[in-house]
Amino acid sequence: MSKQGYSSSSRVQEKRVSGELFSLTYGAVVAQLVRDYESDEEINKQLDKMGYNIGIRLIEDFLARSQQGRCYDLKETADILAKVGFKTFLGVVPVVTNWSPRNDEFSLILDQNPLTDFVELPEDHPNLLFSNIMCGVVRGALEMVQLEVNVSFVQDSLRGDDTTELRVKFVKKLEDAVPAGDD
Amino acid sequence: MSKQGYSSSSRVQEKRVSGELFSLTYGAVVAQLVRDYESDEEINKQLDKMGYNIGIRLIEDFLARSQQGRCYDLKETADILAKVGFKTFLGVVPVVTNWSPRNDEFSLILDQNPLTDFVELPEDHPNLLFSNIMCGVVRGALEMVQLEVNVSFVQDSLRGDDTTELRVKFVKKLEDAVPAGDD
Repeated sequence: MSKQGYSSSSRVQEKRVSGELFSLTYGAVVAQLVRDYESDEEINKQLDKMGYNIGIRLIEDFLARSQQGRCYDLKETADILAKVGFKTFLGVVPVVTNWSPRNDEFSLILDQNPLTDFVELPEDHPNLLFSNIMCGVVRGALEMVQLEVNVSFVQDSLRGDDTTELRVKFVKKLEDAVPAGDD
Repeated sequence: MSKQGYSSSSRVQEKRVSGELFSLTYGAVVAQLVRDYESDEEINKQLDKMGYNIGIRLIEDFLARSQQGRCYDLKETADILAKVGFKTFLGVVPVVTNWSPRNDEFSLILDQNPLTDFVELPEDHPNLLFSNIMCGVVRGALEMVQLEVNVSFVQDSLRGDDTTELRVKFVKKLEDAVPAGDD
């Protein structure tokens, strides 16, 4: 789907649902994957994959609604991602910080994580990254604006860390192309 | 959990997330179950069960936020369910209608179903009730206010019906008790 197509989307809407319904529904996703897969690594991978498929769709609505043009650099991308993207979809604004010296990596710090309301990690899943879907969403969404990035959790308050920190690393610019998806 | 406990909930909040993020996340739940289970009937059953576990939790927040007291009869219950419950959590207000002569059954008609944005039913799942989680949520929530009900879809516009109609049938009043849940 080309960027030119976004403004013709008929899906532009401002519907909101309750954050609690959302977090409970997301909890059901994770619980199902925990039943389905043997290892935490595999669960994390599946969550990332689900997120990717969601991200490549959400970006369409996002661009249509925000009337956002192409970003000048990664600093601007990070800013829009946090202040408009996260704000629009999750209702929270992470802090953009911890830039690498080359300005090709940054962190998103989430004081509040709407995915983890009601959640206590099961003790027998020490490596489960409960919110890993978020990495996939960011990766998928940025891929649709021709940015290949790696995204991973470096801290997760759910696992006892001080805060929740998502690390985004720029890999390369992509040529315009349709990602495969797999849904 | 007794009804008296609701006002002490620390979970009272007004967080909202995007309806599109929600529907895409819910779509991921259903897709995962479609991969996991052989028959549509089993998928429907799992969705209902997930919904039940969500409903018994959502009701706590609902009662705390709405300051809703005990309903006088099923008519009032149906009204609050539609105008406050559905409104609060899904942002839509179904029409309450089609009362049975004995006033022990009613329908909720949903012109809009926030669960089904973006969705096309896969052709090889003719009996899949995509939104069946909703039945479980209503059943679980009402059970927590001592009403045992049966809930099922009698029409689903996603399957080509004229509208989406949820049928709620009163079974009996329950004694105060904690439901088992299974999460």
